[in-house]
Amino acid sequence: MLKLKNMNKIINLKGFRDFLPEEKRVRDYIAAKIKDTFEIFGFEPLETPTLEYANLLLGKYGKEADKLVYTFDDRGGRKLGLRYDQTVPTARVLSQYQDLPKYFRRYQIQNVFRADKPQKGRYREFTQCDPDIFGSTSPIADAEIIAVTYFAFKNVGFKNIILKINDRKILFSILDKYKTDKIDILSIIQTIDKLDKKSENDVKNELIDKGLTSKESENALNDIKNAQKTENLEEIIRLSVNLGVPENAIEFSPFLARGLDYYTGMIFEVIIPEYSIGSFGGGGRYDKLIGQLSGTDIPAVGIAFGFDRMVEAAKELRLVPTANLGTKVLVTVFDANYLSNSIEITKTLRLKNISTELFPSIEKLDKQLKYADKKQIPYVIIVGQDEVKNNTVTLKNMKTKEQKTLTIDNVCKLLLA
Amino acid sequence: MLKLKNMNKIINLKGFRDFLPEEKRVRDYIAAKIKDTFEIFGFEPLETPTLEYANLLLGKYGKEADKLVYTFDDRGGRKLGLRYDQTVPTARVLSQYQDLPKYFRRYQIQNVFRADKPQKGRYREFTQCDPDIFGSTSPIADAEIIAVTYFAFKNVGFKNIILKINDRKILFSILDKYKTDKIDILSIIQTIDKLDKKSENDVKNELIDKGLTSKESENALNDIKNAQKTENLEEIIRLSVNLGVPENAIEFSPFLARGLDYYTGMIFEVIIPEYSIGSFGGGGRYDKLIGQLSGTDIPAVGIAFGFDRMVEAAKELRLVPTANLGTKVLVTVFDANYLSNSIEITKTLRLKNISTELFPSIEKLDKQLKYADKKQIPYVIIVGQDEVKNNTVTLKNMKTKEQKTLTIDNVCKLLLA
Repeated sequence: MLKLKNMNKIINLKGFRDFLPEEKRVRDYIAAKIKDTFEIFGFEPLETPTLEYANLLLGKYGKEADKLVYTFDDRGGRKLGLRYDQTVPTARVLSQYQDLPKYFRRYQIQNVFRADKPQKGRYREFTQCDPDIFGSTSPIADAEIIAVTYFAFKNVGFKNIILKINDRKILFSILDKYKTDKIDILSIIQTIDKLDKKSENDVKNELIDKGLTSKESENALNDIKNAQKTENLEEIIRLSVNLGVPENAIEFSPFLARGLDYYTGMIFEVIIPEYSIGSFGGGGRYDKLIGQLSGTDIPAVGIAFGFDRMVEAAKELRLVPTANLGTKVLVTVFDANYLSNSIEITKTLRLKNISTELFPSIEKLDKQLKYADKKQIPYVIIVGQDEVKNNTVTLKNMKTKEQKTLTIDNVCKLLLA
Repeated sequence: MLKLKNMNKIINLKGFRDFLPEEKRVRDYIAAKIKDTFEIFGFEPLETPTLEYANLLLGKYGKEADKLVYTFDDRGGRKLGLRYDQTVPTARVLSQYQDLPKYFRRYQIQNVFRADKPQKGRYREFTQCDPDIFGSTSPIADAEIIAVTYFAFKNVGFKNIILKINDRKILFSILDKYKTDKIDILSIIQTIDKLDKKSENDVKNELIDKGLTSKESENALNDIKNAQKTENLEEIIRLSVNLGVPENAIEFSPFLARGLDYYTGMIFEVIIPEYSIGSFGGGGRYDKLIGQLSGTDIPAVGIAFGFDRMVEAAKELRLVPTANLGTKVLVTVFDANYLSNSIEITKTLRLKNISTELFPSIEKLDKQLKYADKKQIPYVIIVGQDEVKNNTVTLKNMKTKEQKTLTIDNVCKLLLA
């Protein structure tokens, strides 16, 4: 084992994480599944810089959020900020490059930064996955976002995926009569959004605190409870089902409100019932935001999902075939005389795309077996005098401890099976 | 086309880049080839945070480099820095986690940040690819690094790959007699390193400026010119060739010095003769650095390659099969009556993993064809009255303009071929 004095006790920053190989492999596996799904659905990759001018980011997410943007002055006196989400940088891209296609259908899988209080499951650097379609008001676009979301979760391996869906227009039309000079409709919506965390009574009281009468708040909640889907929402659900989303995966949830102010139509969020720690991400239609950010309205619909929560849930539910992700075989080297034989075998395995580690030192065999065990490498190849004489190798299965003496061709076949 | 007022004229920061889909796809393709190669060679992925404590980063790269580290104070008064390379954060990881395997064989493909003057081909945020082996002094480890580097370039598609190789020990032993209290041996090496950019005469003059006599500087250069490989270097080259690196890809280059002070043994760099803008990255053995950083010596050998230069060269040399990277087919929607047919076809294609865009709006067909053309989508599927009646679709090849009427099964076959 490598033993180091603690590097002046410098460790990673709180709220930031090192991903050691075992964890990083799981993350890469899941990210690849999501990326593949986005691309099969015709979404194109976009990458924006980690740093932007701070005044691009500030004043876009709300006063509270502004405090969470990492900003600093560079040596040239420019005020910079670290990426806070993918939407605002994309709005900049839409504004900066005039030659983008009419319908810009992009995804971004990048890290974002929040100067937030670190707590369990909440980090200062984390990964967001955002597919969005810009330029279209058609329910086809809404359905494409719902479908790509469903299939991204399905392709990662989740079996039970629930998409709670609503239309902000339903909330707007029901709540319109309660708004006054003092009570903003979005403020009422934000209270209603708490119904999945708070009791109906608490929500009612909060509405009363905001200025509704007891009767009004009761009526409002009743009206929402009995709300019917809009035609627009029915069309979106129908198209989503046509695109392959199972009908019973979509749940009309009239109380679903979503926290962000900018949604203008369909809203939805992803729930995994077996891992009910909250939503895995939410999205919807936001036809005014790009205009507010950039000066010209571009309709948009999309979702941001929390990659880190997906990884946690996928691990907990054992969806990732970890056994097959890492190095498949360690080729040992314990006798300098047979080093070139070990190397020849290593080369052959690698040419067959078998992930192969050549032990990087000449040591006793038992040390190399222990090393393979610690690294959870499933197979070890042993090349000694007998094997070289007979033009074979010994393949040891580290789990069953079984050893077989095989030709290198048969080793390849077995490892590729 | 999306037309936006310039978002208060906010554009991306100088020295930072947006990667729009066409470019991003090429980058993803190349990154995947490199990642696959690293994993086939048994290197394990590691990811460290974008931000570290500034005092981890400062004082590690030299005085000049310290100026290039992006540092700032966060709201909690902590002095932070942005990732400058992969080596120092990995040294922290080696120090922080005591349970790593004896030989830590990791790769990192991450962005690094330099507050450098932006110029052609030099950016403030760019991607480095680092495979390293920590813990082994054996030439097997050196050879593994050379081989994984060669195959990473080969698998990206480079045909002519030259690895210039040398041993710092040769330079140390030849130059030892010229060092004085005033003339540091590493300073002489840094001057010699300029021989690929400057004339022999200029280098000689620089050596004289540093305090060597004219005769001494001539002798030094002559001695290096006639230097023989060390046994260690011969062994490393032999093992690299055994691992599959062609003998003629390795060039013993006694003048190769590499700029960084910390190399202690084998050094090498990658040259692509068809794109001779300089080296694509360099590496070597650095057995003392981790000790300097963390307090305990851990021998190490590795390389950092410049991903951005690889991408530029791969594009220039047309190594990337761009035609196959993007969306394969656009399914048109020009009649609301047949929307569900278009969707059904979209669903079928996607289930076969064919990258398919469903046009996100109902518009005239010619607009959709123009859109596919602009986005360079190679195929368009047309579903109208006749097609629906006959249970076929029309497949248009956007390059040849040829149209075929086919069953959906045959479309899948053709697109998967």
